[in-house]
Amino acid sequence: MALIVQKYGGTSVGSLDRIRNVAQRIKRLKDEGNQVVAVVSAMGGVTNKLIEMANELSSDPAERELDVLLSTGEQQSIALVSMALHELGVEAASVTGRQAGITTTGNHTRGRITDMEPALMQQYLEEGKVVICAGFQGIRDDGLIHTLGRGGSDLTAIAVAAALKADLCQILTDVDGVYTSDPRVVKDARKIPEISYDEMLEMASSGSKVMQSRSVEFAKKYGVVFEVRSSLNDNPGTIVTEEHDQMESVVIRGVSIERSQARVTVTGIPDTPGMSARILSCLAEAETNIDMIISNIAHDGLARHSFTMHSNDLGRVQAALKPVLAEIGENSQVETEAGIAKLSCVGIGMRSHSGVAAKMFEALGAAGINIGMITTSEIKIAVTVEESEIERAANVVHNAFGLEGTPGKLNPS
Amino acid sequence: MALIVQKYGGTSVGSLDRIRNVAQRIKRLKDEGNQVVAVVSAMGGVTNKLIEMANELSSDPAERELDVLLSTGEQQSIALVSMALHELGVEAASVTGRQAGITTTGNHTRGRITDMEPALMQQYLEEGKVVICAGFQGIRDDGLIHTLGRGGSDLTAIAVAAALKADLCQILTDVDGVYTSDPRVVKDARKIPEISYDEMLEMASSGSKVMQSRSVEFAKKYGVVFEVRSSLNDNPGTIVTEEHDQMESVVIRGVSIERSQARVTVTGIPDTPGMSARILSCLAEAETNIDMIISNIAHDGLARHSFTMHSNDLGRVQAALKPVLAEIGENSQVETEAGIAKLSCVGIGMRSHSGVAAKMFEALGAAGINIGMITTSEIKIAVTVEESEIERAANVVHNAFGLEGTPGKLNPS
Repeated sequence: MALIVQKYGGTSVGSLDRIRNVAQRIKRLKDEGNQVVAVVSAMGGVTNKLIEMANELSSDPAERELDVLLSTGEQQSIALVSMALHELGVEAASVTGRQAGITTTGNHTRGRITDMEPALMQQYLEEGKVVICAGFQGIRDDGLIHTLGRGGSDLTAIAVAAALKADLCQILTDVDGVYTSDPRVVKDARKIPEISYDEMLEMASSGSKVMQSRSVEFAKKYGVVFEVRSSLNDNPGTIVTEEHDQMESVVIRGVSIERSQARVTVTGIPDTPGMSARILSCLAEAETNIDMIISNIAHDGLARHSFTMHSNDLGRVQAALKPVLAEIGENSQVETEAGIAKLSCVGIGMRSHSGVAAKMFEALGAAGINIGMITTSEIKIAVTVEESEIERAANVVHNAFGLEGTPGKLNPS
Repeated sequence: MALIVQKYGGTSVGSLDRIRNVAQRIKRLKDEGNQVVAVVSAMGGVTNKLIEMANELSSDPAERELDVLLSTGEQQSIALVSMALHELGVEAASVTGRQAGITTTGNHTRGRITDMEPALMQQYLEEGKVVICAGFQGIRDDGLIHTLGRGGSDLTAIAVAAALKADLCQILTDVDGVYTSDPRVVKDARKIPEISYDEMLEMASSGSKVMQSRSVEFAKKYGVVFEVRSSLNDNPGTIVTEEHDQMESVVIRGVSIERSQARVTVTGIPDTPGMSARILSCLAEAETNIDMIISNIAHDGLARHSFTMHSNDLGRVQAALKPVLAEIGENSQVETEAGIAKLSCVGIGMRSHSGVAAKMFEALGAAGINIGMITTSEIKIAVTVEESEIERAANVVHNAFGLEGTPGKLNPS
């Protein structure tokens, strides 16, 4: 008998019919002799409708009350899924975030899980019941209702799996798993059977938004192995797990792309200590999401910093930089460039294989695609290209590393 | 500075515009220097929609899960009303049933309040905040979410007022107060400025369904004086309070009517101990709502019991009686009569004034209206008449007791 934690997103429980399907899937697992905990999101659309009402009442709804309001969406789902299971003759009991023993901390609407006390869930499991647990919510250390922000239900599932020492954690979603690249862009993209936490993190932060980074980080921290798979079919998905030696036989796990990027470059920065920190703290205070950061010294001895960000954030970044520009001095200028995109190669295998960057740049060069900024980490190489070139770039690099080949096969590097 | 508890029903918070109105009303009270706790129901229609979903998923939704589901309606309201208050610059904090410290007992969906621990509400009040409290819900002694059944939000308001030792409790509803009779039937009906708990109870159970009896009983038990008034205007309503001597100057407080009644008579019952109990326990087990009960001995020495009930319950009562009839003996028969209505005169003044029944029967007789069953309590006389005669009967009796007169005026008896 295995203990399986499943997570169903808002689309999976988006209608009463879909809720019945979810109940059927859970029943099947239970009939096979497993203990099951299903973490569910609010029915698709419900959360947005609640947010709309809040915004209609207030230009700036209090986050404390948003938590009270939004947590009702998941509470409705758990009751409805439980009822659908009862109708199939399956014993089931719902638990809210509070009843699941999920303790959180942090600002309202952006909770972080700090502790789990799963006694009630364990009791229900011992009684032979399926447990239906509300995703996205917990109780803050001060006793108030707290939601977990974007990707919160995934986080709940990982935390519940960790607390219950589950044998398996399945994140059921509307995609089949993690792919070597976006299948809408690269037609040869194939599903990755197994990926390490770190690769998944780099893929996620590089735009393959199957899951939020925080859930993957949480899983890595607590060693929760999980599978990303479709709620619409029974195909095996992608297992996300600790890295092991065999994984290194594949140099590049995937090629991810991120569109609608912009670049801001601040020039003429005196090369004095603290200046970079001053600029970056300005951007942090403005809560802008900076992605790539590059800095070097120009021929005139003055430094230049370049940042990329989503083009929606461009205006905010420019505004945030204004006061600091005056401090930097009269030679300082801001240059901006929109209409770029980011291409990343990710793989723990590149640690032990040299020449990955060279091969990537060569492939892009041969295709006549110009490279803008470059950053590298131990397991990732990222470049910017013209947005109009990004699809071609992804295909070229995907081919260069032989990612269309058989899963797990050692590709020539 | 007074502490005022208000209750707003589902109609009063039935749209975002109405929620804004409620916020305005609360702000006004607060601006006048009062501390305010507002108990709110789910937005009109929300609870029914949730019940519909439950019924679509299950022919018999588990009551535990219904509680989880339905309690979300009030939780949404408290957040939205709080946001509307913030928008008006009023500090406000929502509390769920759990946070309000409402402890309950009993079956799911039919909770009874057993204890109140209002520390959090008191803290918010001391901080100068308006408290918006979810009606209709509490936490059962076993820690599970519990709803309070019909009239649950009124009950919450009374309990909160008792726990906080509020100076005033206002039940804001879609009627102006309690009337001497249904104004749609008796055009001279007038609003009653003050009524005793017992009179209110008799009026409620006699069909003037301004409030459920349980809330009035709870208020009586804890000595909570409350006012029933309209949420749509600022007219004074009806104060419900302990009886005092002055109240007796009015013999009859009101005339209430109840339509769609039916009568069931069981005849040929041997006059032996335990037989009545047997019959009534059968009806109780079938959860039928029996109203009037009359019993007497016929000329043959056999007893006959008559009951009245809502005509919707007639079939259920007949079914419940079937097994017991066989036990009673072969002479036993069941007679039924539908199409009747009930007329009740209520008033604590009738205790000290004789001849009330005579006056009532005289008035009906003079109008040629036939009386069926009669029951009396210390402060109520109730009769059944043909349903087609009920409106005329109500007017005749209302006139006979001079109820159209000035409020509080001593009427001739």
